[in-house]
Amino acid sequence: MQNTDSATADLLLTGTVCTLDHQQTIITNGAVAIKNDTIIAIGSAPELIGRYPQAEKIEEAHGLIMPGLINTHTHGAMSLFRGLADDLPLMQWLQEYIFPVEAQLTGAMVHQGMLLSAAEMIRSGTTSFCDMYLFADEVAAAAKSSGMRGWIGEVLYDFPSPNYGELENGFRYAEEMFVKYKNDPLVTVTVDPHAVYTCSADLLVKLKEMADHHDAPYVIHLSETQDEVAGCRQQYGKTPLHHLNQLGILDQRVIAAHCVVLADDEIELLAERQVKVAHCPESNMKLASGVAPVPRLLKAGVTVGLGTDGAASNNDVDLFREMDSAAKLHKGVNLDPTLMSAEQTLRMATMGGAELLGAAKEIGSLEVGKKADLIVLDLNQPHLTPLYNIPSHLVYAARGSDVIHSVINGQLVMRNRTLTTIDEEALREKIREIAGQIKKISQQ
Amino acid sequence: MQNTDSATADLLLTGTVCTLDHQQTIITNGAVAIKNDTIIAIGSAPELIGRYPQAEKIEEAHGLIMPGLINTHTHGAMSLFRGLADDLPLMQWLQEYIFPVEAQLTGAMVHQGMLLSAAEMIRSGTTSFCDMYLFADEVAAAAKSSGMRGWIGEVLYDFPSPNYGELENGFRYAEEMFVKYKNDPLVTVTVDPHAVYTCSADLLVKLKEMADHHDAPYVIHLSETQDEVAGCRQQYGKTPLHHLNQLGILDQRVIAAHCVVLADDEIELLAERQVKVAHCPESNMKLASGVAPVPRLLKAGVTVGLGTDGAASNNDVDLFREMDSAAKLHKGVNLDPTLMSAEQTLRMATMGGAELLGAAKEIGSLEVGKKADLIVLDLNQPHLTPLYNIPSHLVYAARGSDVIHSVINGQLVMRNRTLTTIDEEALREKIREIAGQIKKISQQ
Repeated sequence: MQNTDSATADLLLTGTVCTLDHQQTIITNGAVAIKNDTIIAIGSAPELIGRYPQAEKIEEAHGLIMPGLINTHTHGAMSLFRGLADDLPLMQWLQEYIFPVEAQLTGAMVHQGMLLSAAEMIRSGTTSFCDMYLFADEVAAAAKSSGMRGWIGEVLYDFPSPNYGELENGFRYAEEMFVKYKNDPLVTVTVDPHAVYTCSADLLVKLKEMADHHDAPYVIHLSETQDEVAGCRQQYGKTPLHHLNQLGILDQRVIAAHCVVLADDEIELLAERQVKVAHCPESNMKLASGVAPVPRLLKAGVTVGLGTDGAASNNDVDLFREMDSAAKLHKGVNLDPTLMSAEQTLRMATMGGAELLGAAKEIGSLEVGKKADLIVLDLNQPHLTPLYNIPSHLVYAARGSDVIHSVINGQLVMRNRTLTTIDEEALREKIREIAGQIKKISQQ
Repeated sequence: MQNTDSATADLLLTGTVCTLDHQQTIITNGAVAIKNDTIIAIGSAPELIGRYPQAEKIEEAHGLIMPGLINTHTHGAMSLFRGLADDLPLMQWLQEYIFPVEAQLTGAMVHQGMLLSAAEMIRSGTTSFCDMYLFADEVAAAAKSSGMRGWIGEVLYDFPSPNYGELENGFRYAEEMFVKYKNDPLVTVTVDPHAVYTCSADLLVKLKEMADHHDAPYVIHLSETQDEVAGCRQQYGKTPLHHLNQLGILDQRVIAAHCVVLADDEIELLAERQVKVAHCPESNMKLASGVAPVPRLLKAGVTVGLGTDGAASNNDVDLFREMDSAAKLHKGVNLDPTLMSAEQTLRMATMGGAELLGAAKEIGSLEVGKKADLIVLDLNQPHLTPLYNIPSHLVYAARGSDVIHSVINGQLVMRNRTLTTIDEEALREKIREIAGQIKKISQQ
């Protein structure tokens, strides 16, 4: 039992509390008390109800209270392209479908697309996400209005952007993001070079300086495909990871998304330099990139978080589904059922993500003093019956739709499966309009 | 537009109709009319509403009406062991957890376990299933009371069974099943030898004679693991498939579950003998059996259906999730994004399953004259927005929980996410009691 001296709480949730703290504490008939944006007490329900009689109460006899999930790599606004084109070779998909419509995107479209992903993420239990996309200021505005906690960066590359135009404007845009969201309670700005095949060495280095200057995460797609690695070898005589290493970029600030194609020595290098890895198994499968060597990364001590990638290559942003895929895929491919246990996979989607984002003291587990980012699942359902082991159910049986309430930074953003921050009907209407425009563009 | 001369209909559902017929007909603002157990008309909503004014109506402006999914391999009652033990080597999992509790199972426990899987299957859009387990008469009774359509067999092997005891009683039990369920509208009895490593050659042949005699499917686990194949080679000097071939068993009647470990010539042999394959990708991954060569099976012309296997090794019986896994897994493992398209995967879970079960004229698509087995999904949700392509959404984005209504054999078994055939609260209570007993057994 943990508590503080605070005399009042704003919100009190009761149910089975699965803290995912270091001791993996689970409290039956437990409660979590929240004041402002912070968890102020975790303990038995009768005790906390007695201690905070005036708090608003959400009591769920069959509820499971757990930390919100953390999506470490996504492109929220790509929800606009969900199902626009599938089952195609990567370059055909990108060049015939994604790039033509991205070239005509506007900030207003990105705003709505990000809201759509936020609605889906909240509904499926995600409370924090790390987003790389165009019109990052709109992404941040949409994320803030949804109440979600976001690590958000404007993607930069050598060629002109549909958002900022020439690259020099891109640097200015990124710098302005840091000014605008300084000390924001929900938004943390990141520096986002797209990849080694779209960013010159000079750009990669300049952006690392920017990240260092602002003490910000440096988010990059890395070693996603065999083609990327082969191209980098051809251009620079080395793999993408060794290329970054030679440029002096690899350190604990780097969040490398994908890392599917890695040589043995690269796993050691990632561990040694404390580079973080965002693992996106479903997107890697769907785009036929392959299977990242995640069990070996974990064994080497690399911090790995889980990500959905964008909804255009998944085609959802549901981390419950992603946990299930991650836990099963590595067993099946490596013929070892002990790999990626439910506990390890669940950790990847919670504390692993928090560590990846440099936010292990704020989020990722339910502990007194941490930010109040938590979700409540309804356990009273056939697919969660019987209940022998909570982590097993969360990874292998639970669905995003089992989430009934969500609290982010102390704000109840979903109650009884109704979002409090997003007008979903109006949003769907706007998305349908935008989708009509996108369909026209993609048929040109 | 299809119709018959019937003057009345019992039930009329309206929405977008995704027939999955040979022409992949999709009707916007469409309707399906049902009389007794049969689809009597499919067409435009205004037309059918006008034609059948007295039919009970279920109108869903944002609904998608499609054929119910077909689970071609499961062990329904193993829902009782969901999450009892995970992430273990197969033999440890079986010998330390599953076999000890199975040895003490009763028919009453199996009945409740089957009901639990039926509740989950109906909720997630499955209308037909093929089940292999102990106490098959209880499985059939539970399936019938749930309203589901089942292909059901008592599993037989060389050693005594917790159900029928000595093998000679097993033959009698199986024969009695054929008598009891002759011409049953919902239950079809199958003959189920467990596997080549648990059934003598003599037993395998005797059961094939029984299947031939009753014109029944012959359901067997086949080439599920490398160990199975190695053991069979050691014992019989050949692979499990060649063993069955030499025994004269391979024909269109055989439903082979798993088929993970196959040599090239075996793919040809399966195609040549018209053996059907039940593909269970999630169970194969979770138990670390490997990845079945399904794209090559399909290319060779083998009929493949999709299955969840039992909830103890999955840990759900949700075919929407299984479709997503199947479509992605083969792309990722074979590094080819064009494999297992959404259309192909959706077919596997519908018409493919119907063909596997020898029921292609009755179920698997929405067509006039077929049995009324259909489900309605709510498309009005963030993860199904926008909508460019229906098969893509059904495979890559939809979840079991999107299903709002289900009709099986003309009976509305779920309406507005409420089961009409199963008292879920009472069921959960019974399952919790049984789980308490199972936990005690497993801790002995």
